[in-house]
Amino acid sequence: MVIVMTPSATESDIDAVVAHVNTHEGQAFVSRGVTRTIIGVVGSEAVLESIDASGLPGVADTKRITAPYKLVSADNHTKRTTIRVGGVPIGPDTFTLIAGPCAVETPEQTLESAQLAKRAGATLLRGGAYKPRSSPYAFQGLALDGLRILAEVREVTGLPVVTEVLDVKDIDDVAEYADMLQIGTRNMQNFGLLQAVGSIGKPVMIKRGLSATYEEWLMAAEYVAQRGNLDIVLCERGIRSYEPSIRNMFDVSAVPMMQRMSHLPIIVDPSHAAGRRDLVVPLARAGIAAGADGVMVDVHPHPEVALVDGAQALTGESLDELAKVVATLPALLGRTSAAHRAG
Amino acid sequence: MVIVMTPSATESDIDAVVAHVNTHEGQAFVSRGVTRTIIGVVGSEAVLESIDASGLPGVADTKRITAPYKLVSADNHTKRTTIRVGGVPIGPDTFTLIAGPCAVETPEQTLESAQLAKRAGATLLRGGAYKPRSSPYAFQGLALDGLRILAEVREVTGLPVVTEVLDVKDIDDVAEYADMLQIGTRNMQNFGLLQAVGSIGKPVMIKRGLSATYEEWLMAAEYVAQRGNLDIVLCERGIRSYEPSIRNMFDVSAVPMMQRMSHLPIIVDPSHAAGRRDLVVPLARAGIAAGADGVMVDVHPHPEVALVDGAQALTGESLDELAKVVATLPALLGRTSAAHRAG
Amino acid sequence: MVIVMTPSATESDIDAVVAHVNTHEGQAFVSRGVTRTIIGVVGSEAVLESIDASGLPGVADTKRITAPYKLVSADNHTKRTTIRVGGVPIGPDTFTLIAGPCAVETPEQTLESAQLAKRAGATLLRGGAYKPRSSPYAFQGLALDGLRILAEVREVTGLPVVTEVLDVKDIDDVAEYADMLQIGTRNMQNFGLLQAVGSIGKPVMIKRGLSATYEEWLMAAEYVAQRGNLDIVLCERGIRSYEPSIRNMFDVSAVPMMQRMSHLPIIVDPSHAAGRRDLVVPLARAGIAAGADGVMVDVHPHPEVALVDGAQALTGESLDELAKVVATLPALLGRTSAAHRAG
Amino acid sequence: MVIVMTPSATESDIDAVVAHVNTHEGQAFVSRGVTRTIIGVVGSEAVLESIDASGLPGVADTKRITAPYKLVSADNHTKRTTIRVGGVPIGPDTFTLIAGPCAVETPEQTLESAQLAKRAGATLLRGGAYKPRSSPYAFQGLALDGLRILAEVREVTGLPVVTEVLDVKDIDDVAEYADMLQIGTRNMQNFGLLQAVGSIGKPVMIKRGLSATYEEWLMAAEYVAQRGNLDIVLCERGIRSYEPSIRNMFDVSAVPMMQRMSHLPIIVDPSHAAGRRDLVVPLARAGIAAGADGVMVDVHPHPEVALVDGAQALTGESLDELAKVVATLPALLGRTSAAHRAG
Repeated sequence: MVIVMTPSATESDIDAVVAHVNTHEGQAFVSRGVTRTIIGVVGSEAVLESIDASGLPGVADTKRITAPYKLVSADNHTKRTTIRVGGVPIGPDTFTLIAGPCAVETPEQTLESAQLAKRAGATLLRGGAYKPRSSPYAFQGLALDGLRILAEVREVTGLPVVTEVLDVKDIDDVAEYADMLQIGTRNMQNFGLLQAVGSIGKPVMIKRGLSATYEEWLMAAEYVAQRGNLDIVLCERGIRSYEPSIRNMFDVSAVPMMQRMSHLPIIVDPSHAAGRRDLVVPLARAGIAAGADGVMVDVHPHPEVALVDGAQALTGESLDELAKVVATLPALLGRTSAAHRAG
Repeated sequence: MVIVMTPSATESDIDAVVAHVNTHEGQAFVSRGVTRTIIGVVGSEAVLESIDASGLPGVADTKRITAPYKLVSADNHTKRTTIRVGGVPIGPDTFTLIAGPCAVETPEQTLESAQLAKRAGATLLRGGAYKPRSSPYAFQGLALDGLRILAEVREVTGLPVVTEVLDVKDIDDVAEYADMLQIGTRNMQNFGLLQAVGSIGKPVMIKRGLSATYEEWLMAAEYVAQRGNLDIVLCERGIRSYEPSIRNMFDVSAVPMMQRMSHLPIIVDPSHAAGRRDLVVPLARAGIAAGADGVMVDVHPHPEVALVDGAQALTGESLDELAKVVATLPALLGRTSAAHRAG
Repeated sequence: MVIVMTPSATESDIDAVVAHVNTHEGQAFVSRGVTRTIIGVVGSEAVLESIDASGLPGVADTKRITAPYKLVSADNHTKRTTIRVGGVPIGPDTFTLIAGPCAVETPEQTLESAQLAKRAGATLLRGGAYKPRSSPYAFQGLALDGLRILAEVREVTGLPVVTEVLDVKDIDDVAEYADMLQIGTRNMQNFGLLQAVGSIGKPVMIKRGLSATYEEWLMAAEYVAQRGNLDIVLCERGIRSYEPSIRNMFDVSAVPMMQRMSHLPIIVDPSHAAGRRDLVVPLARAGIAAGADGVMVDVHPHPEVALVDGAQALTGESLDELAKVVATLPALLGRTSAAHRAG
Repeated sequence: MVIVMTPSATESDIDAVVAHVNTHEGQAFVSRGVTRTIIGVVGSEAVLESIDASGLPGVADTKRITAPYKLVSADNHTKRTTIRVGGVPIGPDTFTLIAGPCAVETPEQTLESAQLAKRAGATLLRGGAYKPRSSPYAFQGLALDGLRILAEVREVTGLPVVTEVLDVKDIDDVAEYADMLQIGTRNMQNFGLLQAVGSIGKPVMIKRGLSATYEEWLMAAEYVAQRGNLDIVLCERGIRSYEPSIRNMFDVSAVPMMQRMSHLPIIVDPSHAAGRRDLVVPLARAGIAAGADGVMVDVHPHPEVALVDGAQALTGESLDELAKVVATLPALLGRTSAAHRAG
């Protein structure tokens, strides 16, 4: 069961609802989004039937949700959610380009990448300070130094920062510097990490697991939401397939499906799907046309010397092409560009 | 090795090249497309090295192709090929909508479907007279009666006809009535059928096998080409995946990949990928944005009583939405609409 | 609905049942196996309810089957079926080794392979005269000459022959020479071919399609059965997967699953699953231990010069190892070796 | 590069080798197994060429390893490794049954499960105190209380304990109570967790990720080994597939492949692969026959009331059947039963 509060509901209204739920032996999970608060209620069938919150102050609506994901389900939402990352919206009315280097290597490379990103239309900066690598011998990222570089580049460019957190022990550091925390593909079912990022009150991006079903992906989001944080963005980045000539198979159906199953924004990462530069722009176009609320891409001033995933980083001509797509295609589909706005 | 003839090469020029190849103990496969003829040469390394056709009359170019698909490879083509189906082009400069009922059921249903298709912008009519069905007890199509209905509807609407052939024994019938023969997903490696349709001189559409790699798909096209027919269209229709909420996973990467690997046109079939009406238009948009040369969709005047795949057939509002997409998106990407032209 | 006849039912008993079904507007499909005849009945719910064959002479049992595969379903069988190939049984009580060259190349190579096979315990000879090849330029098999070689080797060794048929046009030739016809992976949903082999009264082996579900595989068998032939053997040979170091992924779960879903015998082909010699014996052991009714493997006297799939052919030591497995493991699981017996 | 030390090498021998590597600007990773120590060396091509440890005291062998997994590669091992869990061996000469409840629920249920396990031939007890669940609302395990129950049951039954650790914060607790720590499927690429368990000096079992390639799986093991711990067991538990009637597809090829690629022991978990009781014994047989060094299964005294995965837990007749398999099949393949021995 989900209890949706009105935008004007007060903290004491919320407390009263939670108390009501507890009295009837249900468990209440309060999730706060930008525009409203939702209270998920879990309990036995008998418990749920005994709860009637519809008359309490501040309650807008009460709904039984049959999907196993309650708080992130589309069922209780007439309109999909817009979240804000350092003031930049991601949601159904806008289009947001997130761009930057796969890994933060040096202050210069990061700044140069961010400037390329901005010129292409990006309003958020991506960049990895902690890198999940298949090999323990590979470059694992600059860690705290990388976070500091990202923060400096944000100062210069004005672009809020999206960066991955790999480990619970790093969450406080990452949260101090980042505007949105990214949960990577390999950690989509690292439930401790999901719960931890759900508790810190910053927007979270959840990349789809390598072979995750749509439902498993939404259950990962539910883990974050259940800890009180509804500011979640889903990110499709390709699934494992048998085809040897591409790194992952970009599942563009995930875009309309997530929009039917959930109220959360959904963006696409064609760089990590394709693994090769020449496919990034066609796949970005496909994702936008399918209805994605944003695109995240790797850019690098000198891909040939990039420490991680240089083969997929946009630069020069391919980046200009992306800029043109971003400037025209979302508008054709009725979206405005997602620049920074006073929240 | 591939020997590309000039557009003005004569039959005796071609014969001379074949004779030259045979003299050197190579095998020559002559493939005729709309605009030019290509001669594939197969033989041992020593044989290939001994052949020098570059000075022969009518020879434009000679190329060694390392891909196992020789005649359909992009290697020997500066521009991707445009083929014509009853005068309607499918190729890199145009956008072609193919629409119609999944199965031909009655003259009325077929005519009505064709009129809906035409109104939505279709310039080719699809419709199944022979239906491959998982169950031997399911409706298998009207066969010859279905072909006759398609031909009558073509008379009325002016739309050339695309229809599937399942069996070598039906090829002459299908070729008599159809403007393009379709090889279905289940028959992508039915090599006898591929060779037979390669010999009849009509355009062929090859749907991707359920789990076919890009290379296997192009090898299927090579089977057709090797029999002398280069008028081939590839059609992406989704691959098998583990995700239970969609019928197949629409592999939009296939569009740019086929355009890099082959000179053949590539279209997409979002209806059979999704298996559900509400995804067809988003996936069609994605396919077009990725660069597809055309889209094929199921339409039906009364999907609720359709004998086959009613759940995915467009009608009413969803068809209007597709019409709007077809009218605007390809133009944004620099394509003109593919109406009938004097061949 | 399925009507199971008693072993002693006469042709006129069968005719009477069919007439009864027709009178009630149902369709009857008579399938004859080695030990008994089954009549599948298809029709609307009302039709099926109106039919009552339980009192007719020769009727052993009448059952409603909910699975879409009626004739091959396990539902109406207390014991799984044993079929006979040139007198050699394949079924739940025995273990059958089928071995031979992937492709018939010469009389000598085929004879030598058959002798190796026999020495390892094989009681059936496999060998391809028609080879389905991804490339139109690859060796396609010796065709009719290959069939004749197989027949000669059968004369010498006494081993009945299993060989693939690729095309309806070759069925009569193949049926003349072979004791069991094989439907290959790529043709599992070539419905015309399935119906044609269902009509010729010889045992049929159906290899699983590259990404076929269990149900689709059984529906392919149902196509054969519906044409009157219940002498069908299923063969698991690996499915497509993302793992690059093996050719296909051997799905050993298919063995117990087929035995729960169907009454047909199920064997495994570890050679085509693995694509590499060193895995063939471990996978053969796995298949036998899982309960397979037989194993089919490639053997070749000189794999290094084999025209097709030499890398997976057993010879020398690896074949000795298989022989040892075949001599011990099935017996541990309660099976006897399947030598030729008077049918 | 890998430097293999002799069994009699001293700590100062090891220190000298590390110092030698450091002098040449390489990085040395010391991994200690039961029988010998291996030192992995990482560095640029020039660095590796400059290092020559072959003459140093205690060095048995020096090898260049081309696989990205150095310490766990089969390349530098003439014999596969045996590890010991509370004195119980897992390795090439023995066969080890690990059994117990999926989740620890109560002391009684755990004890009863352990007694069933022991009677069936188990020498190690499995049981989950921390359960990774797709839903945040599902039972998450008894945590520390569960660990205590496992320890008590070990006291009573003498069975050493294998249990999963989900989170770095719980490692000390789990390591205090468990004899082997299990890394679950969802955490196979949780690199922080892998590094942490690699540092605590207890055996580690690594379950294969849901769609992990063989190489990715071994790289996960390399993360543990790189932190100094070579006592690693791999566990195949089924991969994601498109087949709807089974939960995961049991990849039996993983057994011989891991034995060719790595020196680590490999066991199989047919319970989590199948997800249904009736397949567990056939798949266990298949795994053993393929050469697995052990089997891990779920058992439960009352599966119908189990809190987690009751549908796959063995009990009664199915458990007796497993006991019979364990008593006969490994012996046929030359293995002895892995009871507790003085280490």
